[in-house]
Amino acid sequence: MSKPVKLSNASDYEAFLDKYDTFLIDCDGVIWLENIVIPNLREALSLLRKKGKNLLFVSNNSAKSRKGYKKKFEKLNIEIYDGEIFGSAYASAYYLKNIVKFPSDKKVYVVGDVGITEELESEGIRFAGAAEDVKFDGTDWTFANIKQDPEVGAVLCGFDININYLKYAKAYTYLHSNPGCLFLLTNDDSTFPASGSTFPGGGAIAAPLITALDRNPDAVLGKPNKPMLDCIVQKLSLNPERTCMIGDRLSTDILFGINGNLGTLLVLTGVTEEKDILAENARIIPDYYISSLGDIATLNT
Amino acid sequence: MSKPVKLSNASDYEAFLDKYDTFLIDCDGVIWLENIVIPNLREALSLLRKKGKNLLFVSNNSAKSRKGYKKKFEKLNIEIYDGEIFGSAYASAYYLKNIVKFPSDKKVYVVGDVGITEELESEGIRFAGAAEDVKFDGTDWTFANIKQDPEVGAVLCGFDININYLKYAKAYTYLHSNPGCLFLLTNDDSTFPASGSTFPGGGAIAAPLITALDRNPDAVLGKPNKPMLDCIVQKLSLNPERTCMIGDRLSTDILFGINGNLGTLLVLTGVTEEKDILAENARIIPDYYISSLGDIATLNT
Repeated sequence: MSKPVKLSNASDYEAFLDKYDTFLIDCDGVIWLENIVIPNLREALSLLRKKGKNLLFVSNNSAKSRKGYKKKFEKLNIEIYDGEIFGSAYASAYYLKNIVKFPSDKKVYVVGDVGITEELESEGIRFAGAAEDVKFDGTDWTFANIKQDPEVGAVLCGFDININYLKYAKAYTYLHSNPGCLFLLTNDDSTFPASGSTFPGGGAIAAPLITALDRNPDAVLGKPNKPMLDCIVQKLSLNPERTCMIGDRLSTDILFGINGNLGTLLVLTGVTEEKDILAENARIIPDYYISSLGDIATLNT
Repeated sequence: MSKPVKLSNASDYEAFLDKYDTFLIDCDGVIWLENIVIPNLREALSLLRKKGKNLLFVSNNSAKSRKGYKKKFEKLNIEIYDGEIFGSAYASAYYLKNIVKFPSDKKVYVVGDVGITEELESEGIRFAGAAEDVKFDGTDWTFANIKQDPEVGAVLCGFDININYLKYAKAYTYLHSNPGCLFLLTNDDSTFPASGSTFPGGGAIAAPLITALDRNPDAVLGKPNKPMLDCIVQKLSLNPERTCMIGDRLSTDILFGINGNLGTLLVLTGVTEEKDILAENARIIPDYYISSLGDIATLNT
């Protein structure tokens, strides 16, 4: 397997930047760490824009809609334009509307948060679940009193801080009683980083449905899965050869780029260390790597 | 593979009953269907008792303690004696106390219901979680505010109608931050039957932990897993050769008996049909089968 190229001086950067028109950029671990902006990140993005590059911020986190992400960019004082954000919640809504052409007389049962429902609303897709099933008291529960909405034709599951048994029972029942019901996940990250540790992620939240149904989802809209790239390529009319995925995580960002025949650039400001890609037994290798995306601003002078 | 023997007349029954001193009997689908007692069941149990057989009711349902099961037997007017009930919640408490000899200065973090906590209390095992973490509001949540109890040395997960993200995050954190922390499930049934359908079961409730940790549990205390039989054999000083497992489900009850070198009797009052065991490709085959456990009373005359 070929070694990744470390970008370390101005001419490396020039050659790298000349190869691509579009950069897909992961957020957490690349442009920010929770609420702290990576040093020189604003300047790096500004330089890419000056060179006429197209930027798309691509995140697996389904808790935020594009509107929610925009607020975070603005709060952190990072320049952002309409159409530059592509989270897994939006990818799910885009996929339903434009890839599978989900019928307008059907509804999506949502296990998830406001990030998902805002994106479904923005695409004009009807839904049930989500906020309406947050309140649940197990002491009142009888299995006979599940009410099924006959218009539900898909279940979409993402990270849900308000997960409960009612949501699992309803989602399971829709999928179990109707084999034609679509089963989608926003993303399948088993964990995500927060507060210096990790916590169960969207893939963990969906695991009871996969286990109880003994069925994998029909599509997972987050990296490294292909349906997310299908959405991006269709929406942006992308040329994969002139596109580079920039990320901090080998198993999602870099694999996503490799699977899609994109260029790949790993940054070391997130979860991956240099030794992870230089080891003899390294299995996912980016084309390029740099210490930080901020280095584009400081070294390319 | 040998064909199962159908018990169909008095001499079949005599020969069958003579082979065993102890009968392990599943509950749901064998002695009752939800709240309806199987016809002639009371008479069948009475006949077994008259012949001096030992009976043990063995259930994977962790929602009830032995005390809870006793109430159900009494409500359904089925004769029951102390020491005749062995549910997966009790098996978990017994396993912690007598098999792994869980230290008395440690606590078990419980994802589950009152069935589990009653049994831990009865065995003098200290615990955290369960009822104290039922109330949770995701809108207040920050990942930094998880408080870990340093005395927790095991996580025990069973069916939990009041499952929420706080419980998952805490259980994950105990196991993730302390590789020595024991990880136990009461049972791994992916679904259970109720109201003429099925719903996500204890195995589904535990799936987010298994997915997020990328780790299987150290022991599963329900059928068909061996740790439950280890508890029963030790507690009752059983001779497996003189013991027969009676159940309605091939993948739990009958496999449990086969794995433990017990005799096995399938009843057809639950989820399994005769064709399932007579099919060419049948993989789990009981030694014997009958239409209903009630037949022991009516045919053995």
